[in-house]
Amino acid sequence: MTKAVYADFIYFGGKLEKNKYLLFDEKIIGLSDNCNCEEVFKRENSIIIPGFINTHTHLPMVFFRGLADDLPLMDWLKNYIWPAESKFLDEEFVYDATMLAACEMIHSGTVAANDMYFYSKQIGLALKRAGLKGILGAGILDFPTKFGKGIEDYLNNAKDLVDFFMGDKLIKVALSPHAPYTVSPENYRKCIDFADMYDLIIHTHLSETKDEVENIMKKYGKSPVKLMDEIGLFDHRSVFAHMVHLTDEEIEIVGKKNVKISHCLESNLKLGSGFSPVKKLIDAGCVVSIGTDGAASNNDLDMLSEISTVSKFHKGLNLDPTLLSAEEMLLIATENGAKALWLENSGRLDVGNYADFAIINFDKSFTVPLYNPLSQIIYSSRSENVTDLFVNGNPVMLNNKITTFDEDEIIEKSKWWGRKIIGTISK
Amino acid sequence: MTKAVYADFIYFGGKLEKNKYLLFDEKIIGLSDNCNCEEVFKRENSIIIPGFINTHTHLPMVFFRGLADDLPLMDWLKNYIWPAESKFLDEEFVYDATMLAACEMIHSGTVAANDMYFYSKQIGLALKRAGLKGILGAGILDFPTKFGKGIEDYLNNAKDLVDFFMGDKLIKVALSPHAPYTVSPENYRKCIDFADMYDLIIHTHLSETKDEVENIMKKYGKSPVKLMDEIGLFDHRSVFAHMVHLTDEEIEIVGKKNVKISHCLESNLKLGSGFSPVKKLIDAGCVVSIGTDGAASNNDLDMLSEISTVSKFHKGLNLDPTLLSAEEMLLIATENGAKALWLENSGRLDVGNYADFAIINFDKSFTVPLYNPLSQIIYSSRSENVTDLFVNGNPVMLNNKITTFDEDEIIEKSKWWGRKIIGTISK
Repeated sequence: MTKAVYADFIYFGGKLEKNKYLLFDEKIIGLSDNCNCEEVFKRENSIIIPGFINTHTHLPMVFFRGLADDLPLMDWLKNYIWPAESKFLDEEFVYDATMLAACEMIHSGTVAANDMYFYSKQIGLALKRAGLKGILGAGILDFPTKFGKGIEDYLNNAKDLVDFFMGDKLIKVALSPHAPYTVSPENYRKCIDFADMYDLIIHTHLSETKDEVENIMKKYGKSPVKLMDEIGLFDHRSVFAHMVHLTDEEIEIVGKKNVKISHCLESNLKLGSGFSPVKKLIDAGCVVSIGTDGAASNNDLDMLSEISTVSKFHKGLNLDPTLLSAEEMLLIATENGAKALWLENSGRLDVGNYADFAIINFDKSFTVPLYNPLSQIIYSSRSENVTDLFVNGNPVMLNNKITTFDEDEIIEKSKWWGRKIIGTISK
Repeated sequence: MTKAVYADFIYFGGKLEKNKYLLFDEKIIGLSDNCNCEEVFKRENSIIIPGFINTHTHLPMVFFRGLADDLPLMDWLKNYIWPAESKFLDEEFVYDATMLAACEMIHSGTVAANDMYFYSKQIGLALKRAGLKGILGAGILDFPTKFGKGIEDYLNNAKDLVDFFMGDKLIKVALSPHAPYTVSPENYRKCIDFADMYDLIIHTHLSETKDEVENIMKKYGKSPVKLMDEIGLFDHRSVFAHMVHLTDEEIEIVGKKNVKISHCLESNLKLGSGFSPVKKLIDAGCVVSIGTDGAASNNDLDMLSEISTVSKFHKGLNLDPTLLSAEEMLLIATENGAKALWLENSGRLDVGNYADFAIINFDKSFTVPLYNPLSQIIYSSRSENVTDLFVNGNPVMLNNKITTFDEDEIIEKSKWWGRKIIGTISK
């Protein structure tokens, strides 16, 4: 059944249109000056934009948000995050935490997230309940965990996940070898073969910290980027999170291969890891997209505040106020997100693309007067401004109220988890 | 009459207290385990903190928010901001715009703003109506404007402003020589004499852009900082906005004199001006506080998002996740704000200090679970979380609703101004 949304502004096909109806079912049918659909949503002082695509995150870590901050990375991981994970992580934790993450994603206009964590089936089930899209990274490590003894087990888990979500309209599976310091070149190669066989993208961390680069140099006599290049990962459909510590030569290598990057600026800054040279990467030919990383390091999943920070940060760093304009940032957070995750018919409102969109209303004291809606989104809007979200044409939030589940119940349950966790973790 | 607020957490006297009543009238009386006051406000899952102090802004510029973005500074000023100002600026504009700015400040927990603009009397009147505190910078320039022919006229205007707000509980006056590139050393010296006579602080821009530093070097054979040092401004009660481009020698000079700085990071970044070396300045002995600058360059007046950006930015820049911890950031945005503006009995919840405080509630999907309330404020809270604001013990917002004026009316009026402005400014 054809539905329609009317708004003052629609960012459609990469252009700002005014006072139109957006017609859609699962996919976008087109723009129109009028409509006689049965179901019409009218929104005043609002703009319809493609929903944001978060290209790197660990959704269930929302339950560790604020558990430990202002600490060196290894102290944070070894003394807080890993002990908490080893104590509490189970299917129930992951499902409940993903539901909380879904609340935040919906309110900040995110339609899809590229995740990497444990118990990914539960993440997928929670996202389906929420009505959101997810790419579930099936985890690959060299060493044994409770999920397997080694690469063969992890690949078998991936196969199970692929089978479980086969043909799903919302959930896809990716293969996620964790990082060059936890996965050997040999196992990266096995991942490429497996991913080829099952038609999966590969999602990995790369060049996040100085330590990583130094350790990989010591171990392999080459940098993480050169190692990945040698393994052939840049020639496979892949997305690389972080890419912080890079030489100009490495930037040239990844640029030439149009490598897809998930820029996780707030997480990199907050953990004191540094920042990715985004201007150089874009100039070299990379596709830069935006990830929030997990909320234990960010400390949120808010794509709106992330893109605002990204735009301002690189302007200031490069002493260039024209860099990463509002419109460029919107494309980076939507179209480039779809490109980075190799999603077809996504990331752009256009005829035949999926009807994945957010509506942003400007009737707040911090978003009036209105001169330029794109600028108002990137530089002034907050999650409060996001009133509606549609995924595959289905409403997930209407007039600020989540329609797919009871948000208050999720918040109460999350508090219960918090009480359980705080009681056993020493600060 | 003694009033009380009860909350789960109170950041009192630089310490986190739990489950107490905060007793106050105009000033803070103390903490208590129980109370039998007539008026008691109870807040669950909340923390009471000192209200934020915004140490550098141009409040009425909210009406130019988003009018022109992603442009070089001089293009932005000459082709958009100055033409718009020359066309629309009058008493009504400034009063109405300040009321809009007040909405945003209240919602984001700000109790006081250090302003610098035109028609400052109207700014003061609007802030009084809103119930907020303001320091009005009486503008000083070398050249004639419609406000005067030269320094004598501007000082006379300042004198009128001082007389008008004499003894006011909310409004103070400062002297605001604009910047070294618009005010001569001679006139800066006259400002010091005048400020001494009327017991005013001085508020000026300093070392904001590379161009400024180069032009001042050319004109005077010394940097802006050395020029100010020679003039004696660092020995006067003053606050300096920006302080972006500084040599190590200059940092030593200002550090030794404990110079008060308003760090306006988001504005400096967005305009491509660079960023202030805050870690070095603090280490050298400066008092760093936080300013949003005007909303035409930021593009908001939100202290919560500003301090989150500041903390993350300097951690990333210095590759040090322990830098500017959540608690340090809270002190920088409150206590240091009071120090930078030379406000007595302010910026800290303590017996005898003014009852200027905000209440932040954590019942949102992006602020649960709760482990560390200070971390949750700085890294995860948004203006939505700020439920209440008290200034001099008077409620300005209760349960998210502004009590001192009709916010919807202000938003509607602001839209009217926007329509008027957009109709005459070419984009």
